[in-house]
Amino acid sequence: MATPNDHAHAFQSPRGTRDFYPLELARRRWIENKWRTTAVRHGFDEIDGPTFEHLDLYTVKSGDGIVSELFSFTRQGGETRFALRPEFTPTLARMAAARANALPKPTKWFSIGPYFRAERPQRGRLREFLQWNVDVIGDDSPEADAECIAACIGLLEQVGFTPEDAQIRIYDRRVLETMLVVGLGISPTKIEKWFNWIDRREKYSKKERVESALDFADNEQQVLDVETILGGPTTKEELDKLRREAQDRNLGALAEQAGEAGQQLVQEHLLQAAEQFGRTLSELASLGLSDWVVADPSIVRGLAYYTGTVFEVHEATGAERAIAGGGRYDNLIELFGGPPTPAVGFAMGDVVLSLVLQDKGLMPSDEQIASDLGLRPDAFVIPTAETEHLVKPLVARLRREGMHVRHTHKSTRNVGKLLKEAGNAHARYALILESDSVCSIKNLDANEQADNVPIEEAIARIAPPGRS
Amino acid sequence: MATPNDHAHAFQSPRGTRDFYPLELARRRWIENKWRTTAVRHGFDEIDGPTFEHLDLYTVKSGDGIVSELFSFTRQGGETRFALRPEFTPTLARMAAARANALPKPTKWFSIGPYFRAERPQRGRLREFLQWNVDVIGDDSPEADAECIAACIGLLEQVGFTPEDAQIRIYDRRVLETMLVVGLGISPTKIEKWFNWIDRREKYSKKERVESALDFADNEQQVLDVETILGGPTTKEELDKLRREAQDRNLGALAEQAGEAGQQLVQEHLLQAAEQFGRTLSELASLGLSDWVVADPSIVRGLAYYTGTVFEVHEATGAERAIAGGGRYDNLIELFGGPPTPAVGFAMGDVVLSLVLQDKGLMPSDEQIASDLGLRPDAFVIPTAETEHLVKPLVARLRREGMHVRHTHKSTRNVGKLLKEAGNAHARYALILESDSVCSIKNLDANEQADNVPIEEAIARIAPPGRS
Repeated sequence: MATPNDHAHAFQSPRGTRDFYPLELARRRWIENKWRTTAVRHGFDEIDGPTFEHLDLYTVKSGDGIVSELFSFTRQGGETRFALRPEFTPTLARMAAARANALPKPTKWFSIGPYFRAERPQRGRLREFLQWNVDVIGDDSPEADAECIAACIGLLEQVGFTPEDAQIRIYDRRVLETMLVVGLGISPTKIEKWFNWIDRREKYSKKERVESALDFADNEQQVLDVETILGGPTTKEELDKLRREAQDRNLGALAEQAGEAGQQLVQEHLLQAAEQFGRTLSELASLGLSDWVVADPSIVRGLAYYTGTVFEVHEATGAERAIAGGGRYDNLIELFGGPPTPAVGFAMGDVVLSLVLQDKGLMPSDEQIASDLGLRPDAFVIPTAETEHLVKPLVARLRREGMHVRHTHKSTRNVGKLLKEAGNAHARYALILESDSVCSIKNLDANEQADNVPIEEAIARIAPPGRS
Repeated sequence: MATPNDHAHAFQSPRGTRDFYPLELARRRWIENKWRTTAVRHGFDEIDGPTFEHLDLYTVKSGDGIVSELFSFTRQGGETRFALRPEFTPTLARMAAARANALPKPTKWFSIGPYFRAERPQRGRLREFLQWNVDVIGDDSPEADAECIAACIGLLEQVGFTPEDAQIRIYDRRVLETMLVVGLGISPTKIEKWFNWIDRREKYSKKERVESALDFADNEQQVLDVETILGGPTTKEELDKLRREAQDRNLGALAEQAGEAGQQLVQEHLLQAAEQFGRTLSELASLGLSDWVVADPSIVRGLAYYTGTVFEVHEATGAERAIAGGGRYDNLIELFGGPPTPAVGFAMGDVVLSLVLQDKGLMPSDEQIASDLGLRPDAFVIPTAETEHLVKPLVARLRREGMHVRHTHKSTRNVGKLLKEAGNAHARYALILESDSVCSIKNLDANEQADNVPIEEAIARIAPPGRS
């Protein structure tokens, strides 16, 4: 049997995880509450899955390469491989597939819970973190994209951000793909490599950036051309111009040149994607949300399963990692055994959000959070030497009636000191028991005291409405 | 890369885990909310730790034997062994030890989160479950035991149980230990084996029960004598009698016979434990909770770290596993590197609690739960053919103002059908937009409709107080 001294590291939380003492836990709950109330107001229903899944659920979509990024395990003596969930979308797709025929269209779901990545911890990235997932399932319209993004913006507003603090950077992968294939003649078979490079390119130095692209680019000029396109059309007018220009070209020849994939690209992506992306932007405008949104062709997202709209929320100066990210994934639910089902969603973690809120001074004070979460005691009961035996039975009764009541555990009977303790606990009222029938009641917010109040009258004054 | 057809089990949740669709998630949140509000009212502060810990945190206390009951893992290429947490107490002891000098006495903490056991799933036991942990740290008094138990009873009351539905079975390990050593002459070195047997004995058949005890019992008569003691003293009067009887014996001879351990047993346990256990029972009585409590010497709890009071909550007929269990663990925080710190606490899982609530018809209806959780839409906005374009901007505005608002995603404009959809969504009000300035407002609970209401007036009527 191991002894404590053999294993000093057993007394710390694992690297990249967090201990939440009461103040940290209250801040975490403040964020969770903002996530939950925002999603509910926007008409989403809460769901959740297991904290771990079959490992296959993640390799089906992402290949075995993902295993090194996961915490995976078997049961002792068992063969089935499990993994701590690194993201929610595969669970959601599995759950949607299992009930596909019974779900209304659209189905609007959200979830809040812990997620895990076996990465090196760094600023904004931990091994265990909380994540809010918001998804609209069974609706392929640009309006569904906007509905999802509106919920994301709703959260940004709820925590006190303005469009000067944070922005939604949005684009449509199909539009970018079309620009790369039709505009630059890049082979559709190389698009995934280009997307991965685009997603990572801000992490490279300028020299590394070009070099890393030359692994698959035709030549250095092509890399520069792609960079130019990433500064490409962002307004509705520019998007319309792109469509007209491309339509003016010889689409048949382009399609032939690119094979079947190219044909689909030209037909579906070029003629539909730019129009649909324009509609998403228009819908956001009609919801009064244009100030929050910037079209940005360099947003592609790393995950392979996105099929159209992709977006990220960034702190306006770009100082931190993305606060949130998401997009449309129209093929995933089918991949997990359901009928073809379009879907769009996003995820927001608590780590970067907390960093940005703190940087901007938007995280409320601990007192404000305690008040927001309903954690303030309704009353703090103080005895005199004669009424000490009455305190605990009264406290027990008030708790049973739905009140949050505290009392001292100290031996002092100095009323001044105990009033101070009541104030430190942020209690709304102090009840000083003068006898078994009469008390003084002090409103600690207003600093007003009334003496010789019958106890039942004082209790009626303290009781918050509708508590039981 | 695996393909879906290779791995059909990837499309189900792992055995012993649960998918929470909206109705199941709402029931889970109803229980979590009852746990949280009860703990807060009783003056406990919420904390949490990581979902996984260093494996050593569990083997330090329980030995390597526990590893087969855990889901343990390493990072790919890493050496450090981690385990999904099977219980909260080691995390709590680690966290208390780390801040021991800064914590007030007592420190009252609770936590709510997922826990994991690599066991065969069965009724009342899953591989992933939720658990509520409630602990009083830094107070060795019987009153602290009672404070903890009072919070547990507070929860039972909050979910609608009466003492006819569920009972706290409580005892003190030291009292039982004294009865076994002083009364029956059992060696103190064999007490842990006896406790394990007592904890498991109801799972054996009568024949197996005696046989399994003969592995360490002196003879069959001793097993029968222990069984008799398990029906032993349960009232304050009986406990006092036990003390007097034992004091009348030759304590010195007993102590010498049992060595150092026996001496401590006689001095500390016999003279203090029965008195302290009596005080715990008296304190519960003075809080008006006697009806909930039954002293029962057969309650010892399986875990080795309990040092005094132990208790379990059982459905009154004993039909299910324990709803909750806990006790005093005065040595554990010191074991994890803190100063000597007494502590008492309990844990309640969601699985057995849910089963018992459902069996007794105490789980509220889904409508009631939606109402309790504040999930009912404040309004459902319905357009006419002329006002369709006004719906989404209005909905977006009301959500921004803090209201939970829904609208149809169907193409029908039949007001009757849409009112039905509003009712199915449990909305409080339907707003039928007649023009950009006037609407009909229908109170769906009262089934009362007012026509030609200015929209701003209707909104003011809908807005719940204090929402923002």
